[in-house]
Amino acid sequence: MPRNAFYAQSGGVTAVINVSAQGVIETARKHPDRIGKVYAGRNGIIGALTEDLIDTSRESDAAIAALRYTPSGAFGSCRHKLKGFDTNLAEYERLIEVFRAHDIGYFFYNGGGDSADTCLKVSQLGDKLGYPIQAIHVPKTMDNDLPLTDCCPGFGSVAKYTAVSIREAGYDVRSMAKTSTKVFILEVLGRHAGWTAAAGGLAADQPGDAPQVILFPEIVFDETKFLGAVDAAVKAHGFCAIVASEGLRLPSGEFLSEAGTKDAFGHAQLGGLAPLLAKLVGDKLKYKYHYAIADYLMRAARHIASKTDVEQSYAVGKSAVELALAGKSGVMVTIERQSDSPYVWTTGTAPLDKVANVEKKMPRDYITDDGFHITDKCRRYLSPLIQGEDYPPYANGVPQYVTLKNAAVPRKLKTAFELKK
Amino acid sequence: MPRNAFYAQSGGVTAVINVSAQGVIETARKHPDRIGKVYAGRNGIIGALTEDLIDTSRESDAAIAALRYTPSGAFGSCRHKLKGFDTNLAEYERLIEVFRAHDIGYFFYNGGGDSADTCLKVSQLGDKLGYPIQAIHVPKTMDNDLPLTDCCPGFGSVAKYTAVSIREAGYDVRSMAKTSTKVFILEVLGRHAGWTAAAGGLAADQPGDAPQVILFPEIVFDETKFLGAVDAAVKAHGFCAIVASEGLRLPSGEFLSEAGTKDAFGHAQLGGLAPLLAKLVGDKLKYKYHYAIADYLMRAARHIASKTDVEQSYAVGKSAVELALAGKSGVMVTIERQSDSPYVWTTGTAPLDKVANVEKKMPRDYITDDGFHITDKCRRYLSPLIQGEDYPPYANGVPQYVTLKNAAVPRKLKTAFELKK
Repeated sequence: MPRNAFYAQSGGVTAVINVSAQGVIETARKHPDRIGKVYAGRNGIIGALTEDLIDTSRESDAAIAALRYTPSGAFGSCRHKLKGFDTNLAEYERLIEVFRAHDIGYFFYNGGGDSADTCLKVSQLGDKLGYPIQAIHVPKTMDNDLPLTDCCPGFGSVAKYTAVSIREAGYDVRSMAKTSTKVFILEVLGRHAGWTAAAGGLAADQPGDAPQVILFPEIVFDETKFLGAVDAAVKAHGFCAIVASEGLRLPSGEFLSEAGTKDAFGHAQLGGLAPLLAKLVGDKLKYKYHYAIADYLMRAARHIASKTDVEQSYAVGKSAVELALAGKSGVMVTIERQSDSPYVWTTGTAPLDKVANVEKKMPRDYITDDGFHITDKCRRYLSPLIQGEDYPPYANGVPQYVTLKNAAVPRKLKTAFELKK
Repeated sequence: MPRNAFYAQSGGVTAVINVSAQGVIETARKHPDRIGKVYAGRNGIIGALTEDLIDTSRESDAAIAALRYTPSGAFGSCRHKLKGFDTNLAEYERLIEVFRAHDIGYFFYNGGGDSADTCLKVSQLGDKLGYPIQAIHVPKTMDNDLPLTDCCPGFGSVAKYTAVSIREAGYDVRSMAKTSTKVFILEVLGRHAGWTAAAGGLAADQPGDAPQVILFPEIVFDETKFLGAVDAAVKAHGFCAIVASEGLRLPSGEFLSEAGTKDAFGHAQLGGLAPLLAKLVGDKLKYKYHYAIADYLMRAARHIASKTDVEQSYAVGKSAVELALAGKSGVMVTIERQSDSPYVWTTGTAPLDKVANVEKKMPRDYITDDGFHITDKCRRYLSPLIQGEDYPPYANGVPQYVTLKNAAVPRKLKTAFELKK
């Protein structure tokens, strides 16, 4: 008898997380003898806890295929992290209650480090609480900070956005620099690891190309060195384009700019870095500046997604289902690189207990000695990830993204569940 | 005997100003009997004043053709505005000295309102100072605020960027809104006119689509109404996406957020609006927010340029040369709309004395009564301008933009010229 599958999206969404959803759903649809329906959690794991399930079988093949071109989380995402079995057993018991009511035997969780931890715990429900379920983690994070995978689906597209954007802005500021703006700063998302900022370095093929300065969270911010590097670029090339990671830190370990609020995972919410750096440049070097803050635009930018990233995002979704059908559980699908050039990759697996809550930072030898650019080694790593364009369809000048019906699965339980904050 | 032409780029550059340069140069090259060489001003009009001319005949046909795909000002731009004849006669006398030395009989000036004024004055050099020259203005401004033309080359691409970006970010925030970010603000360039913000409205096809709130400089900011509109959108749709023009003003006429510095034309330099609005939303409505500041990214975004805009940018450059050959002077090339749907347009002309220093604001009936969205009339006007995609070529995942040789024309004058600030 086929059992049903549960799929959910977790954490910050990306331009291509829906491509993984497409991979999961399309692959599951090919195995009706083994997998019944794919139920998606409305707003991530919250949908499971509150028995708010979406019946993806109500979506046409065309709608599911259109997920390939649609950024964001088509079923809704959330930042709710399940705590340990000891701390909040009620949540796991509730999951089992819902899963049992809907005969769910497969759990596909699409997210980053926090959700890998949740997925690991779900994979242990059989041993710990007597409800066997196969749990496979489908990696997704624009931050590229998951361990044991060569790269993370979602990252390549953000990387491409950063490289394209700083190349374009660099051309712009170069042409204005004689009498106007000389320094341009692009602030990019990336809380703890500098991958997204590093990708800006791919725009610089020739000496003097933008960006001349990259600020990584891995390198403690040094005001004097920073101003020296900016001034040197302006003197040598007439302008300076900077990519700055929001996660830039002071020697004290504090973020250079703290908004003072915390998100639901207890992380500090950042944002005000670029104006701070810009003011420094203006006050100390007296150069006219402009700055942009990419924020959600970069992770939602399906219009300039990396084709490589799109293909990998599909592959991890497809592979997750195939692994489940092969009896696997407690693993994350990985991307394994066979060669840089030509770029050859396959999918693989990593045990979730080695993945959860481990952050992969930039290796020091990916950053130049002065701390302001990427090395050739880093370029060899990053370059394949942004290769290829995969444009969405357009009508009336704007991309045509799908909004699914997201029809609810009728509830079977009488009980409600209140989420702990 | 053919005489030489001078071409210069002025003011803030765009994703497509180089397409107009391409139009000027390619058209001039077809008339060697009438036009000798096209000399470009290095860094705009400053290149003329300082006799720093670029010999565009040294560029291959392929390099000139590649201008079609290259954002920014390929010859450099500037924000130097020529004052009146009475105020600074020396600048005009210097222009004549340089033009005479290089046998320049045609003047093509590619810019916005400020440069239309300069172009007008150059067209008067014959009458006022005895140096006859044909001066044609090639319109360019992402602000879309030039009068007497249906639209301004450069605007359509910014408009498309805004519509695409807020659609993508709207999808993103909608999927996060259950437990995380509910309000997203995109700050766009646009000092005095709301055209660039209005274009965001094209992303909203259906009720509830992003953006639900647009903030125009033409509508005085009212905090209570703004917060009411945001709260209503969150309550109705779960999230609110906002496009905010940097030029938003208080009832006093002051910009909502002033950086306190001035640019070379004496305009206030703006920038800090989005965080201010975001804080208001956070403090008063207690919704989690994110914001992006597009800044130069939007005007440099050749990767998502409007095909219509690219075609119009070429046409105004080509037409400028044809008008000069037909004996015209003191005019700006215009875009004239024949019909909205199907969209049919031609080029025309407007006398420069009616263009210079006039700003075209959004008509009130392009903005809904509540002040927060665009009307159907506005949509009919804007929609054709963002139609079509015109992707640049890519290699290694990044767009391939041309950097010209920009070889200097040998100087003929012994005299130097010092620019007045």
